[in-house]
Amino acid sequence: MTTTTDRPAVADEHADAHVDVAALTEQLLGQYADLRREARAVVGTPEFQKIEGLAMAEHRERILHQLRELVAHHDVLRAFPTRLGGADDHGGSLARFEELVAGDPSLQIKAGVQWGLFASAILHLGTEHHHDTFLPAAMSIEVPGAFAMTETGHGSDVSAIGTTAEYDRETQEFVVHTPFRAAWKDYLGNAALHGTAAVVFAQLVTAPEGAPRVNHGVHAFYVPLRDPATGEFLPGVGGEDDGLKGGLNGIDNGRLHFDHVRVPRTNLLNRYGDVAPDGTYSSPIASPGRRFFTMLGTLVQGRVSLDGAAVNASKLALAIAVTYAGQRRQFVAEGPDETVLLDYQRHQRRLLPLVAEAYAATFAHEELLAAFDEVFSGRGDTPEGREDLETLAAALKPASTWGAMRTIQECREACGGAGYLAENRLVGLHQDLDVYVTFEGDNTVLHQLVGKRLLTEYGRALKAGGAGDVARAAAERAVHRTPLIRAVQTISDVGDARRSAGQLRDEETQRELLTDRVEVMVAELAMALRTASKLSPAEAAALVNAHQHELIEAARAHAERVQWEAFTRGVHATTDPGTKRVLTWLRDLFGLALVEQHLAWYLVNGRLSAGRARTVSSYLDRLLVRLRPHAQDLVDAFGYGPEHLRAPIASGDEAARQDEARAHFRAQRVAGREPVPEKHAR
Amino acid sequence: MTTTTDRPAVADEHADAHVDVAALTEQLLGQYADLRREARAVVGTPEFQKIEGLAMAEHRERILHQLRELVAHHDVLRAFPTRLGGADDHGGSLARFEELVAGDPSLQIKAGVQWGLFASAILHLGTEHHHDTFLPAAMSIEVPGAFAMTETGHGSDVSAIGTTAEYDRETQEFVVHTPFRAAWKDYLGNAALHGTAAVVFAQLVTAPEGAPRVNHGVHAFYVPLRDPATGEFLPGVGGEDDGLKGGLNGIDNGRLHFDHVRVPRTNLLNRYGDVAPDGTYSSPIASPGRRFFTMLGTLVQGRVSLDGAAVNASKLALAIAVTYAGQRRQFVAEGPDETVLLDYQRHQRRLLPLVAEAYAATFAHEELLAAFDEVFSGRGDTPEGREDLETLAAALKPASTWGAMRTIQECREACGGAGYLAENRLVGLHQDLDVYVTFEGDNTVLHQLVGKRLLTEYGRALKAGGAGDVARAAAERAVHRTPLIRAVQTISDVGDARRSAGQLRDEETQRELLTDRVEVMVAELAMALRTASKLSPAEAAALVNAHQHELIEAARAHAERVQWEAFTRGVHATTDPGTKRVLTWLRDLFGLALVEQHLAWYLVNGRLSAGRARTVSSYLDRLLVRLRPHAQDLVDAFGYGPEHLRAPIASGDEAARQDEARAHFRAQRVAGREPVPEKHAR
Repeated sequence: MTTTTDRPAVADEHADAHVDVAALTEQLLGQYADLRREARAVVGTPEFQKIEGLAMAEHRERILHQLRELVAHHDVLRAFPTRLGGADDHGGSLARFEELVAGDPSLQIKAGVQWGLFASAILHLGTEHHHDTFLPAAMSIEVPGAFAMTETGHGSDVSAIGTTAEYDRETQEFVVHTPFRAAWKDYLGNAALHGTAAVVFAQLVTAPEGAPRVNHGVHAFYVPLRDPATGEFLPGVGGEDDGLKGGLNGIDNGRLHFDHVRVPRTNLLNRYGDVAPDGTYSSPIASPGRRFFTMLGTLVQGRVSLDGAAVNASKLALAIAVTYAGQRRQFVAEGPDETVLLDYQRHQRRLLPLVAEAYAATFAHEELLAAFDEVFSGRGDTPEGREDLETLAAALKPASTWGAMRTIQECREACGGAGYLAENRLVGLHQDLDVYVTFEGDNTVLHQLVGKRLLTEYGRALKAGGAGDVARAAAERAVHRTPLIRAVQTISDVGDARRSAGQLRDEETQRELLTDRVEVMVAELAMALRTASKLSPAEAAALVNAHQHELIEAARAHAERVQWEAFTRGVHATTDPGTKRVLTWLRDLFGLALVEQHLAWYLVNGRLSAGRARTVSSYLDRLLVRLRPHAQDLVDAFGYGPEHLRAPIASGDEAARQDEARAHFRAQRVAGREPVPEKHAR
Repeated sequence: MTTTTDRPAVADEHADAHVDVAALTEQLLGQYADLRREARAVVGTPEFQKIEGLAMAEHRERILHQLRELVAHHDVLRAFPTRLGGADDHGGSLARFEELVAGDPSLQIKAGVQWGLFASAILHLGTEHHHDTFLPAAMSIEVPGAFAMTETGHGSDVSAIGTTAEYDRETQEFVVHTPFRAAWKDYLGNAALHGTAAVVFAQLVTAPEGAPRVNHGVHAFYVPLRDPATGEFLPGVGGEDDGLKGGLNGIDNGRLHFDHVRVPRTNLLNRYGDVAPDGTYSSPIASPGRRFFTMLGTLVQGRVSLDGAAVNASKLALAIAVTYAGQRRQFVAEGPDETVLLDYQRHQRRLLPLVAEAYAATFAHEELLAAFDEVFSGRGDTPEGREDLETLAAALKPASTWGAMRTIQECREACGGAGYLAENRLVGLHQDLDVYVTFEGDNTVLHQLVGKRLLTEYGRALKAGGAGDVARAAAERAVHRTPLIRAVQTISDVGDARRSAGQLRDEETQRELLTDRVEVMVAELAMALRTASKLSPAEAAALVNAHQHELIEAARAHAERVQWEAFTRGVHATTDPGTKRVLTWLRDLFGLALVEQHLAWYLVNGRLSAGRARTVSSYLDRLLVRLRPHAQDLVDAFGYGPEHLRAPIASGDEAARQDEARAHFRAQRVAGREPVPEKHAR
């Protein structure tokens, strides 16, 4: 094997390139490899494999049963306190749960509802009394629970929910109440059927004697819903089934409403706000706004795990479609055999950039998970650390969930009619993953949060930097401060910033192109919005709204760059030289596909000349050709077995059918039984 | 009302702008307005409305029943000969069928299988004997039939199917046989359950006595499948169910195989090729290649009707999402009320360009339908006319079906969690329409056909034009010859081709930008491929493959331009000045969204300067603001009633819930019962 150098000749590059699949699989499994492998082993058993087309009612029961099996026989309570039978292992717990998606996404999300939302709210928003009283039954699913935050009228804007919980000094109870139809809780897993309790978010209203009634904003309350024996709603509680959904039909989503339902004062999950018996409100966080966002912030793990699960779904789809594309043949281009789909340039164009994106998202997710564990373990639990974590999750969850939708759909189309059959999994994955882009933080709303954070950081940097090369420094800070990007080197100034074609594969060039774009977009936005504070509220709102699209695009550019940086660190961490070579090409493909996609920006902003811009696509085409021989290895390295893919088209059946057909024609020729084609008969 | 002039001041434009919804509806319904209205009335009745979540078996029976109802009580046999009870109305018949999608896409496609494929094959590939013998029962659904062309091993490459039909002189029968597993017929509607006969495509092999056996290529045969009384397969016939699909589960798709199944010689549908009793083959078309494509060409109506149905599905989704977006509120920007979703810039950006695209696709489809009727009525049935029709269908079907997928998905996401509920229709539409992009001609394969046609036309023009300004003339011809674009004016030469921002709204500027792009792409491709004929087959194949992506992109650019031209003709045909104003903005939005999407191309190729390119997006943003007040009118003009939309979120429920909530808070204030927000209590 040739020794790799920084810039070997092209011929050497090709000779050198190979993928050590086992080692790469290990690298992709990451810091929680053992837990992931264990979880994959569980969901690879028939008991946990999704049955496509199961009727909704049966599917719901099956998922509940699977959940109970998980808790009875498998290590799924790692996130909970050691004293209650958990392991205080937040990152490892999420890693495990992300792998459930390979069994059935409904199982992943139902587990998320039960442990990630319902029990986690008790853990993170409650205190010792709640941990002792409610957590064990929530952990064991003795009490299946709903997370009753969203209402029909308010999803993204949680602060505006209509449900109230007013304190009654007389009885020392909270009265949970739904004042109008729009305030019905909605889309809640476990609400339609299984939930016997819920954590209900409501506006906390209280008043000590003689004082005015004050609304202290949204707080969480533990509220029993149903009689566990009969399954009937308790007095004052009502609801209805959300019915069939686009997917995830193993989860019983539903609506809830409350008619003056009374719960003990101590059912307020009181970590961030409490009410004394006399009705006096107290909180460790003085600002109602900051308190609200602190409470919501504990829910970041939902976004973190969706990011991981979405990447896994993309990988499953790619493993199916790339395997099929490497066997399926259609049309004779030349020679006796028909052409393998993956040898068509367009097919490579369709699938390989998505493989690259899945790698980028995998590495980025691994870093997100580490950041999450840092904060939730307490090792790095600072306000800054939390804010960075939330921004990172808000950047990556949209990127990976939208990525999964694009990836799964492209895979489905790349498999033609076979891709439309439920047995080949792709349509089911699309249906199940669809809602990932709008729940647990609508992607568009999350990207706005990221955009605003980038602007805030820019503003801070501007203040701190004073005059001089402020814009530059500020932009740097704005995009470099979030955890993934801190390590980045200072980017050298490059005069007219026009690149030569050869430079495109240079890591620093790619970094600079992707970074520049975020920096300039944020700086331009800040410039455009700088007068907002001097305007009337209406004018300011109009000004901000007139730049909403750019704000979201800036956030997207940031997320793409974060993924690229993580991928690059992943490449650096790869030790086998041949694998490193292939991964470098794949990273280049990821980077240059982004540059191609945003090429107009680079041209308009003078980062690439027209001549150089033309070379982006052709260099990308060359990368496809280089990567083609490694495509199967790259998806095999995702580490999924037939028990996870479960798609007949990715099973080898297709190749076997072709062998049989070829053997038939060969036998005909040998036997002289082959009819003459008409055009040769003349 | 102000009088419209060619270029009124902006203030006048706004004052003038309004939509005459009734008149616009009529225009969109087009040449077959009455038939479309009648069909919509039928599918708006409960009997024909899709029941989301119906179990597959029930859904299949329901669709078969609906089909029988259609034939018993409604005018659905227009495409068939008058002498057999039809109306010889090809265009009108398709228009009717396209409207079925509003009831249940499964019904549209099952009708397509029965009448558009099975019975149509008898009509178009058979002769009088077949019309008399098989057509009445196929028309009446006494015989539900499969269209057995695609095999597991061959979909797009029909010429390579493995099924054989060998003529036996002794018995004067054809022996239909499946030689290996890959040659099983697959994905066929009516094959799993209902079909009692099929039109089977097979390699026709025959030999007069003493002559060598010759394969005359793919021909169609009428083959009985099942005993109508018992539903059992006839001897030699076998098959299996394709099972659950991503959607369209009201259709019983399945597989078929044949073990030396004998049918009479006269069951060969012999319009384009016949076998005499002694085994002699004859055909009115000498070239086997041209014969094959002529036979396949009769199937163009499938693509035409999918184009229309896909546009209708987009319109349904947009009517739901835009209506909801105009009522749903979330987050307070300023003032007492929360902001209506459609007032957010990003929400406008997400939905309004898709409304524009639906208009473009509607006008383009109307012209495609006219071209189809011209050919199939016999009025314009020339080889050139057929070729143009096929190219146009191959350009538009991918554009509208991919457009439908993007549109429906964006609509679903724009409706958040509510969009994921089956009751709101969007997920069901996505699931059902998904396969439209890969069946009846895979979109990628169709766009390659278009690309090749553009190259052929370019080559012809080059030969015809001789020297001089050949490239220009050739490119013109290449893109202008297909029916939609013939009327276009010669485009003036524009020196350095850099445009001012104000010009972007100029029709000729948009035309030139869109046209230039196709012309140059085709000319560059031709240049890149010019050496192919001098290369070895392997080298030539590699060269062509290295430009496959560009070829497909050129076809896409062509399709977009065809849609833009049709939209522009639609605008010109609009008589009401206010409506014309709004439609002009919408057409501008369509055109400029395309320019924005391909902005890099315009920059690289010097069609727009960097400075001008920057103005594209901002002008687009201004168009969104202008169109916002007309959004509801524009989707109302699609002409769908609540019986077609059937989505609770588009029913007015959302606005009613908000009114109730507002009334609640108002009553609280009036009664002095409103709690003080914590931040005001301090």
